[in-house]
Amino acid sequence: MRRSPAIISFISDFGGDDHFVGVVKGVILKIHPKAQVIDICHNIPAQDIFHAACLLSSSYHYFPYHTVHLAVVDPGVGSARRPILIQTKNYFFLGPDNGLFSFVLEKEPPLKIIQLTEKKFFLPKVSTTFQARDIFAPVAAWLTRGKGVEDFGKSIAAIEKLSFPQPLLGMGQIQGEVLWIDHFGNLITNISEQLLAKFGCLQNCRIRIKNHELSGLSHCYSEKGPEKPLALIGSSGYLEIAVNMGSAEDFFKAKKKDKVVVFWK
Amino acid sequence: MRRSPAIISFISDFGGDDHFVGVVKGVILKIHPKAQVIDICHNIPAQDIFHAACLLSSSYHYFPYHTVHLAVVDPGVGSARRPILIQTKNYFFLGPDNGLFSFVLEKEPPLKIIQLTEKKFFLPKVSTTFQARDIFAPVAAWLTRGKGVEDFGKSIAAIEKLSFPQPLLGMGQIQGEVLWIDHFGNLITNISEQLLAKFGCLQNCRIRIKNHELSGLSHCYSEKGPEKPLALIGSSGYLEIAVNMGSAEDFFKAKKKDKVVVFWK
Amino acid sequence: MRRSPAIISFISDFGGDDHFVGVVKGVILKIHPKAQVIDICHNIPAQDIFHAACLLSSSYHYFPYHTVHLAVVDPGVGSARRPILIQTKNYFFLGPDNGLFSFVLEKEPPLKIIQLTEKKFFLPKVSTTFQARDIFAPVAAWLTRGKGVEDFGKSIAAIEKLSFPQPLLGMGQIQGEVLWIDHFGNLITNISEQLLAKFGCLQNCRIRIKNHELSGLSHCYSEKGPEKPLALIGSSGYLEIAVNMGSAEDFFKAKKKDKVVVFWK
Repeated sequence: MRRSPAIISFISDFGGDDHFVGVVKGVILKIHPKAQVIDICHNIPAQDIFHAACLLSSSYHYFPYHTVHLAVVDPGVGSARRPILIQTKNYFFLGPDNGLFSFVLEKEPPLKIIQLTEKKFFLPKVSTTFQARDIFAPVAAWLTRGKGVEDFGKSIAAIEKLSFPQPLLGMGQIQGEVLWIDHFGNLITNISEQLLAKFGCLQNCRIRIKNHELSGLSHCYSEKGPEKPLALIGSSGYLEIAVNMGSAEDFFKAKKKDKVVVFWK
Repeated sequence: MRRSPAIISFISDFGGDDHFVGVVKGVILKIHPKAQVIDICHNIPAQDIFHAACLLSSSYHYFPYHTVHLAVVDPGVGSARRPILIQTKNYFFLGPDNGLFSFVLEKEPPLKIIQLTEKKFFLPKVSTTFQARDIFAPVAAWLTRGKGVEDFGKSIAAIEKLSFPQPLLGMGQIQGEVLWIDHFGNLITNISEQLLAKFGCLQNCRIRIKNHELSGLSHCYSEKGPEKPLALIGSSGYLEIAVNMGSAEDFFKAKKKDKVVVFWK
Repeated sequence: MRRSPAIISFISDFGGDDHFVGVVKGVILKIHPKAQVIDICHNIPAQDIFHAACLLSSSYHYFPYHTVHLAVVDPGVGSARRPILIQTKNYFFLGPDNGLFSFVLEKEPPLKIIQLTEKKFFLPKVSTTFQARDIFAPVAAWLTRGKGVEDFGKSIAAIEKLSFPQPLLGMGQIQGEVLWIDHFGNLITNISEQLLAKFGCLQNCRIRIKNHELSGLSHCYSEKGPEKPLALIGSSGYLEIAVNMGSAEDFFKAKKKDKVVVFWK
């Protein structure tokens, strides 16, 4: 049974300076010429599994059901770390077993987890440094051609998990941190809209970052004047610190893991 | 009626470090799995509407008729600025009403301009910071599935316009400026081939930039020696200053809006 | 006869800051809406024909048979350099005649080499600075629509060739060099796995780079501790110097053409 449409998303730390991303697509198309590969992002900082896990978790559910999400940030490539394929109710996830799928699986519980062992679906020669090409790409292609997940290997029970840095609750405050910084210099935190709502912070709060204090949440970037800082609920549903027509990263000299505190009332 | 082919071009200032571009494509494919999204460019400098308007105007007509051109440089996202859809004789244009389509519409007059108001075509939850995902992507997808432009909202008469910096004519000279600088460091000016032709400059002229003077137009980059500066008609039909095997940006320490003067005879 | 699938790979030095890559795709789709263009890489350093030739040679065979490989690094654009189309047993190659296909053709001998002269397949107006758009894109599209290679021009016998920097053999040693450096800072050399095997170096060798000496080949990056240097056979089949969880480029302050010596026994 062919799954239609044959869509594969692809996130990696391969960057854009080499042929890596293109070659993965070539391998996929050689097996399944009608597959469509959609890049989520290839500029994940090298070996930053956590960052890829965050972006994948903010992205996967916008894709058509049955999309195969291929994620390759793989410092352990060629070692004993296992290549895995996960089936959930709506999607497939494919990549190394190193925690990449931790945050996705909190939202989309795994139905089956398969360790990829069936070498007949790999390229004839498997390198120890580029298994996105030699293992994951061909498996993704065969999967979109209709193979069942169990054709690719044996079922396993447990996989690696990263822990999400949960915000801390203090006296009248939520202590969080900057999870990542986007292209515009916006600071995306680990403090969710739901948590803010629980303590009435959507209506009324103060937010402290790096000795600056912001009063309340804005509705959109342009609500403040140009170059003015503000806080709002970002597009992934988390508290975000921004600067209208500017960069909060530069304004606050911020970096990942910087502390962000929300005081209620 | 389905329009065939279902091609959507996409230009933005989203960069390549995040999941933004991929998520927009995911949303489109979830609604119309056979749509094909072609990136024009996502490295428009953040919030630089003028630059995106120039590149779009140099690009759109190379695409198949009925292409939906999605353009999102949107500093006013989430504010009162209107999301719009424009139908011309040959194309559709979709994005925020902030001047992005100014130069396109000089070449391709609008037949209908629609303010997007029909929320049933948006994602169920519309954020205030990522409406490319929540509004424009689903509308693009439904449009390629065959909806009429009037299904998406109400007709409006006037939209925002940027003014193109027209060159000035002086005594025996044309005064222009650098519009943008490309990846190779070539300086693209606002002085068109037609204007140069009108004053005989294609055959004979001198060009001054930053205290340097260039004599006449070259036919191609390699007509001059390596690292030598030259001027020619660039691929968009405008006067371009270049350096063979080098960068005019570095050679002249040039930046956008630098003055370029052409002296005829 | 339409060739199915209509896949075009695309490698260039166009970068991602402009509309160049998108416009090439637009032109292709306008002629053949079902063509699929797959980017190999567009961040080849400007005018670096050798680098593009290396990446193309490491990539082309992973694509489906009959793929049209479009390669445009073209410092001589608009000059007398010839636009060419090459047919081999399994693929087509399309681009300027400046050596881009040198290393590919050592693996995949040319059956026919055509100089593109049939202007009816070009865009109506051919610029002197962007012939990827005006010549190569339309020819690629018509080729995937089923035109024969001889429809596009006249057969020619000889084309430009770059010479590959072959490693030197000395007393008990192989002297090679860094061919290119990838996104992760890995140093890819010109010393092939076959050459290393011939002298027993896969089992036992010492590798010298920049006054450092590495002992033997590793199996994978993570075999050494974090930030430790190592050597292994890279994914293209050449000796590669790497740093686990780090950058060999930074560690060794390495650059292209740096000497790498392998001592056997």
